[in-house]
Amino acid sequence: MFPEISVTRTTSPRTKPIPGQSLPFGQYFTDHMFIMDYVEGQGWIHPRIEPYGPMMIEPSAMVFHYGQAVFEGLKAYRCADGSINLFRPRLNYERINLSDERLVIPHLDEDFCVYATRELVRIDQDWIPSGDGESLYIRPFVIATDPYLGVRPANTYRFMIILSPSGAYYPQGINPVKIYVEDKYVRAVRGGTGFTKCAGNYAASLIAQDIAHKKGFVQVLWLDGIEQKYIEEVGSMNILFVIDGKLVTPALNGSILPGITRRSCIEFARSIGMEVEEKRISIDEIIDAGKSGRLTEAFGSGTAAVISPVGELKYEDTTLTINENKIGPVARLLYDTITGVQRGVKEDTLGWTIKV
Amino acid sequence: MFPEISVTRTTSPRTKPIPGQSLPFGQYFTDHMFIMDYVEGQGWIHPRIEPYGPMMIEPSAMVFHYGQAVFEGLKAYRCADGSINLFRPRLNYERINLSDERLVIPHLDEDFCVYATRELVRIDQDWIPSGDGESLYIRPFVIATDPYLGVRPANTYRFMIILSPSGAYYPQGINPVKIYVEDKYVRAVRGGTGFTKCAGNYAASLIAQDIAHKKGFVQVLWLDGIEQKYIEEVGSMNILFVIDGKLVTPALNGSILPGITRRSCIEFARSIGMEVEEKRISIDEIIDAGKSGRLTEAFGSGTAAVISPVGELKYEDTTLTINENKIGPVARLLYDTITGVQRGVKEDTLGWTIKV
Repeated sequence: MFPEISVTRTTSPRTKPIPGQSLPFGQYFTDHMFIMDYVEGQGWIHPRIEPYGPMMIEPSAMVFHYGQAVFEGLKAYRCADGSINLFRPRLNYERINLSDERLVIPHLDEDFCVYATRELVRIDQDWIPSGDGESLYIRPFVIATDPYLGVRPANTYRFMIILSPSGAYYPQGINPVKIYVEDKYVRAVRGGTGFTKCAGNYAASLIAQDIAHKKGFVQVLWLDGIEQKYIEEVGSMNILFVIDGKLVTPALNGSILPGITRRSCIEFARSIGMEVEEKRISIDEIIDAGKSGRLTEAFGSGTAAVISPVGELKYEDTTLTINENKIGPVARLLYDTITGVQRGVKEDTLGWTIKV
Repeated sequence: MFPEISVTRTTSPRTKPIPGQSLPFGQYFTDHMFIMDYVEGQGWIHPRIEPYGPMMIEPSAMVFHYGQAVFEGLKAYRCADGSINLFRPRLNYERINLSDERLVIPHLDEDFCVYATRELVRIDQDWIPSGDGESLYIRPFVIATDPYLGVRPANTYRFMIILSPSGAYYPQGINPVKIYVEDKYVRAVRGGTGFTKCAGNYAASLIAQDIAHKKGFVQVLWLDGIEQKYIEEVGSMNILFVIDGKLVTPALNGSILPGITRRSCIEFARSIGMEVEEKRISIDEIIDAGKSGRLTEAFGSGTAAVISPVGELKYEDTTLTINENKIGPVARLLYDTITGVQRGVKEDTLGWTIKV
């Protein structure tokens, strides 16, 4: 059914992180990686699992110059019974194809990518950490490899999956963070690449994050690129609010990433009868709702951190403290539910996980 | 004065393109490349010239994931007297620092970069082609190299210069091209990265170029990201118009690249007493000026093609033919002047060139 994946096992296993010691995010890599190449006219060829390590690449490879690069992020979880869960992996590969299409990168077979992910995780399963908040972070990505200096879509690409046993993405954990509203720099605009996970989006966002850190904030809240008035994302996460008891989040508009954790929050909230609104939300509306007490929670959602509550929001001269700078009941419920399903300690009523 | 550049010469010279045969753009690379690494706390270290070739890089290198990559493009020209000209190279390194700053990449010493460029070109000077329209294309670039998967500015970078003996960028040469006005996709917006040469800008632009080609156009004319009404660039070049005998070009507004050829066109035009206007220009204004006969020329400017006349411009249901689809006198004068100075056949009255 699927092309055969050739496997070359490592003969010099890498050093594993020591269990029980604090595990950073995205710094350790496992023994193996998945690689598949694309050649114009031949399609995606030579799927293989090889020892993880540096690769040879031309300095003229187009990815270095014109940024044709997209990625995904998902996680594998070790359950109490020893089995391994993946959380909605097909959605990641559907989304990588959205990114691919926008960046003129050839389509990937989603089901084969899920299969390859399972094969790779199975081989490196001893690397899955089982501590609190720990998981095996999975990073699929595609880069353009033609050794060529003109601006055009490449004719050759490499798709890879690498694995990183990781602790919590935000050392702050589930504690509320301080953010401020970015009103100078813009993350994305309709007609651009905001809805994709392309490399360039992240490079463009760094300066605001850098300034935020220097000012004592953990992240920025991004406004739309046109009117700089409507809320889009927080840092590299989607943002959700609880207003009048409803879950409210910016509608997907072409400049917002269609987050899988965002979608899971919405689906779960609806499944328990909570009202959910996806709509255009101005920053003024949030400030007003905060001042009048109608806004009771705000939190980011994303694969890396799952749920990250916002305790303080600064916009121009206004500082809004949300839910007394504590995690609220909706954020807590969503966090517990999603992480519980991911780790197999809560029933997967919505069919989100698959076993490796 | 400058740090010493260590030189390792190749022992297996690469095959040179055959003189007289059609030379493509950006496909051949010379025998050597310049490399310098950045390490947080140590600055830019180990400047060196090494044999050109593939390099080892981690699959987790941040450039592949978060797109922290900027580049420049300039050329070395072989003059009739055998000497070698560089065209305003310091401006390229001033601009790479603009890009660096926006992308939170450490500052480079412009003068040292010019020095390194001269050293490298001197070593590979036998590679400079001397055919009509041919030159040695010089590509400096910076990439983030940390093997790390979190979104933050990298702590390690690599700066490289590679060289490519090249023919004309556009096979159409100085012949006018057909372009159409892109009204769906957006290249850049204020507060974004449009004024930089960051890799992500080019990846984001490919889809429009791809569609243009399929529709029979050579390039697209980009409108502003906010109102999609004001003219910004053409393909990956700046755009200039001749209206009522004046040279008119969009003012630099944060989403337009500050082109060095653009600047040279403006400076030369002013030096011969031609009136120049840098201002916000709507597409409607151009269509009107075309219909009334006041618009007599339109052309792109850039390092790769120097000047590229626009013969036909399509916007919605209107097709405007400009100067009967022929190159006009201003475009011709600018092309002849700039290429003449570059190749040392015209007097360099404005001090644009330096010898290698």
